[in-house]
Amino acid sequence: MLKYIQITEKDNVAIAIEPLAKGEDLGGGLVTQDPIPQAHKIALRDMKKGEYVVRYGVRLGALNRDVKAGSWINEHMIEVPQSPGLDHLQWGTHIVTDLPKPPRTTWLGYEVPGCEYAGSRNILGITTAVQCVQGVLDVAVRKMKEELLPKYPNVDDIVALNHPYGCGVAINATNSDIPKRYVRNIAKNPNFGGELMVVSLGCEKLTLDMILDKKDITPENVIVLQKEKGFHAMMDALMAMADKKLARLNQRRRVELPLSKLCIGMQCGGSDAFSGVTANPSAGYASDMLVSGGATVMFSEVTEVRDGVEKLAARCVDEATCKKLAKNMKWYDDYLAEGKVDRDANPTPGNKAGGLANIVEKAMGSIAKSGTAPICQVLDPGEIPTKHGLIYAATPASDIVCGPSQLASGCVLEVFMTGRGTPYGLASMPVIKVCSRKEMKEMWDDLIDVNAGTIATGERTIKDVGTELFNLILDCASGTKKPFAEQYGLHNYLCIFNPAPIT
Amino acid sequence: MLKYIQITEKDNVAIAIEPLAKGEDLGGGLVTQDPIPQAHKIALRDMKKGEYVVRYGVRLGALNRDVKAGSWINEHMIEVPQSPGLDHLQWGTHIVTDLPKPPRTTWLGYEVPGCEYAGSRNILGITTAVQCVQGVLDVAVRKMKEELLPKYPNVDDIVALNHPYGCGVAINATNSDIPKRYVRNIAKNPNFGGELMVVSLGCEKLTLDMILDKKDITPENVIVLQKEKGFHAMMDALMAMADKKLARLNQRRRVELPLSKLCIGMQCGGSDAFSGVTANPSAGYASDMLVSGGATVMFSEVTEVRDGVEKLAARCVDEATCKKLAKNMKWYDDYLAEGKVDRDANPTPGNKAGGLANIVEKAMGSIAKSGTAPICQVLDPGEIPTKHGLIYAATPASDIVCGPSQLASGCVLEVFMTGRGTPYGLASMPVIKVCSRKEMKEMWDDLIDVNAGTIATGERTIKDVGTELFNLILDCASGTKKPFAEQYGLHNYLCIFNPAPIT
Repeated sequence: MLKYIQITEKDNVAIAIEPLAKGEDLGGGLVTQDPIPQAHKIALRDMKKGEYVVRYGVRLGALNRDVKAGSWINEHMIEVPQSPGLDHLQWGTHIVTDLPKPPRTTWLGYEVPGCEYAGSRNILGITTAVQCVQGVLDVAVRKMKEELLPKYPNVDDIVALNHPYGCGVAINATNSDIPKRYVRNIAKNPNFGGELMVVSLGCEKLTLDMILDKKDITPENVIVLQKEKGFHAMMDALMAMADKKLARLNQRRRVELPLSKLCIGMQCGGSDAFSGVTANPSAGYASDMLVSGGATVMFSEVTEVRDGVEKLAARCVDEATCKKLAKNMKWYDDYLAEGKVDRDANPTPGNKAGGLANIVEKAMGSIAKSGTAPICQVLDPGEIPTKHGLIYAATPASDIVCGPSQLASGCVLEVFMTGRGTPYGLASMPVIKVCSRKEMKEMWDDLIDVNAGTIATGERTIKDVGTELFNLILDCASGTKKPFAEQYGLHNYLCIFNPAPIT
Repeated sequence: MLKYIQITEKDNVAIAIEPLAKGEDLGGGLVTQDPIPQAHKIALRDMKKGEYVVRYGVRLGALNRDVKAGSWINEHMIEVPQSPGLDHLQWGTHIVTDLPKPPRTTWLGYEVPGCEYAGSRNILGITTAVQCVQGVLDVAVRKMKEELLPKYPNVDDIVALNHPYGCGVAINATNSDIPKRYVRNIAKNPNFGGELMVVSLGCEKLTLDMILDKKDITPENVIVLQKEKGFHAMMDALMAMADKKLARLNQRRRVELPLSKLCIGMQCGGSDAFSGVTANPSAGYASDMLVSGGATVMFSEVTEVRDGVEKLAARCVDEATCKKLAKNMKWYDDYLAEGKVDRDANPTPGNKAGGLANIVEKAMGSIAKSGTAPICQVLDPGEIPTKHGLIYAATPASDIVCGPSQLASGCVLEVFMTGRGTPYGLASMPVIKVCSRKEMKEMWDDLIDVNAGTIATGERTIKDVGTELFNLILDCASGTKKPFAEQYGLHNYLCIFNPAPIT
């Protein structure tokens, strides 16, 4: 039985499929020199201090000591290299058009008038202009769910789109366009069916014109709490507006739609060294099938692609796309530098325990979820796409920020790959979990929707798992299946990205 | 009837108690030259371009045009001055010891073993090490409230202390000590009775040693979701631990305690030009009574005291306190400058509509809530005090961040002054609302607990309202009364202050 996985022939390290004892014979004369934890790296030959450790055919960094073949190579032995330059990226040098064909080309979605994409759910999403209104709105939403929702069986849920932005912030600061865009665009997510319901306090800095088109600022869409005569009047106004919006949403029906009407997001969190060989390539395979069928797929997480920027540039379809990629990488480099850190602040203790030595190795695994399709557009964080196909949405890698970013960009379903395990979920779109290791599925059998761990042991192929995931994506988008997080109602808050100061 | 309020004899402006028409005779030969909105400034005499507008005896800034006596002076006419220097602050030059005596000197609180302060409520607070656990914890807390809480009638509530920190952040960045301190100290709030219940995912950057003492990291206190065999096992573990903690909390009883066992916070939000003459001075009067009786009272909000720093320095009891005040002001100046803004990014559209021309005027009103007592200690954001008396806790002014900051610093009740109106509340401590204008109380009769607006019309004095507020603070702290926000369950999320980058 296979004991380790070497990804490319250039690689001078491989990862252990199971924990290995010291002195184990791995075949071909290779014998372990140390106990090696599962997913951690084994030196495939003797290496000298200063020599580069290579995995995915990529230099993870230089060794800070000599190692013998069969030794454990961990994060303390590798120096993080400089990140690749951004000024002379080559675009369009690796455009793959031979993508796997999808076994299905339609799904059942909720169309939205005037919108490129359709919804996977039919939800009343209630936008908040400021966090001050949250207490009142949450009480109202509980009441709506009890008293109104049962009257409208075609509506899936009512969600208060609470967030920490809106006031007590430097509203005109250089980077304030980012959180403003999130609030504005989340309201437009196809899962909310084009119905606008907005709750404002009345004195906040995030004024209605910053988040709504002028034509939409009407008494039919907006409740200003300071204009209501007290708490009970607020509740009455909220219930009355919700009732009207729910009645309209209740008219919606799923219809059979081409994949071009589907927009989904891919993200990963709690990754390990298997993520890049099992879960993420499977997601990449499903992504390629979706893109080849006409769907839009986003991948994200700036710090987790920064070291692979040359590979992404090579897949950009034109110069403008490549330039926007570089611009977003540069912006994040500067943002981190202002906080006196760099991209290597990204890996977590869990990543490291899972065998990821540094951000370079993590990035190579992370990028695998984008498959092989050309990148047709790059989005600023929270921006809505104007093209169909594979899209890079430049968001923070933080799981709890990436999700809301993809929601703002119009995704109606998210696929979440995990090595260590996270129960993350969102109220506004279904989140499918894919695990990288068999042990994870055994541990969290009732939380992990797809087990990609069997790829490491050779039981299944990337194509097998990728196809399973593709089908599950369409089933969940069509509402015929629900991922575990949705079944249990696991809902993380919307942490929207505000790189500007608070006041 | 009085038509305007002039605060000090030095002032060359006053504010309109009611909206004034053009041409109204205000007495003493003063006639309005413009319609003047309620709470806005009237020029008391002719003034030249470049002359300083003076209110509270303080220069709000220089006029950018000539104005006639009786004219409306608004924010567009005043240039914001430079903020006062921090290098040569004079401390101890204005120490007032003649404070009003409190009419009551005891309250009913829940003592906490080993803690300087007692709780105003008896709550199971469940600390989260990372936002990833929030979905699971929220489902569990709903179940706990249904199935466990009814068994323990002496426990007031169960609160998931969700926050956006813990992972996807630069955990070792220069300013990461601030959010870490929040998470650690909120768990110690006296309202949680010294019981620790912590939920970790297992792979997050905010490791348990960063938020707990070593002795407290035990299976009795900590649940690690990645160590549980799936969702149902997580729920069982959470329910079982909560059951044990609730049983212990249920043993607690209120006892009569001296005021020295009470620690409360003061903040304001949605302020107007009345705030500084009605609501905030009343809060200051109540604060003076509390401090004189031995209680600890915090006031906060850096950008809203920055322009009054010389007045605060004069009230500092020693050099160390004054230096820590200056250090915190400097830190925030730099923090804002990095985001390319300054303290004048603070005022909101509501503040301006309420007659506050700029941050200087807002600060003078804001400081009024600190009363006249000497400042015995200055705290970094989220720090726990070691002294009793009036304390300046240097937190952001953002309402939704200031509250959690005071919670971290150990406050068990908050008093919130508002001019424009906000329904803000917290699950972990009662929040009393005081309004600055009669019209606010008329509008939000069922949300405003204390009406200080009657001070402007001369119907009541600052002493009257301050004494009413003092009594309500003790009644609410003692659990014999509940403010409106608590009655309705209005609970804002815990937005903890993270000035470091996210990754």
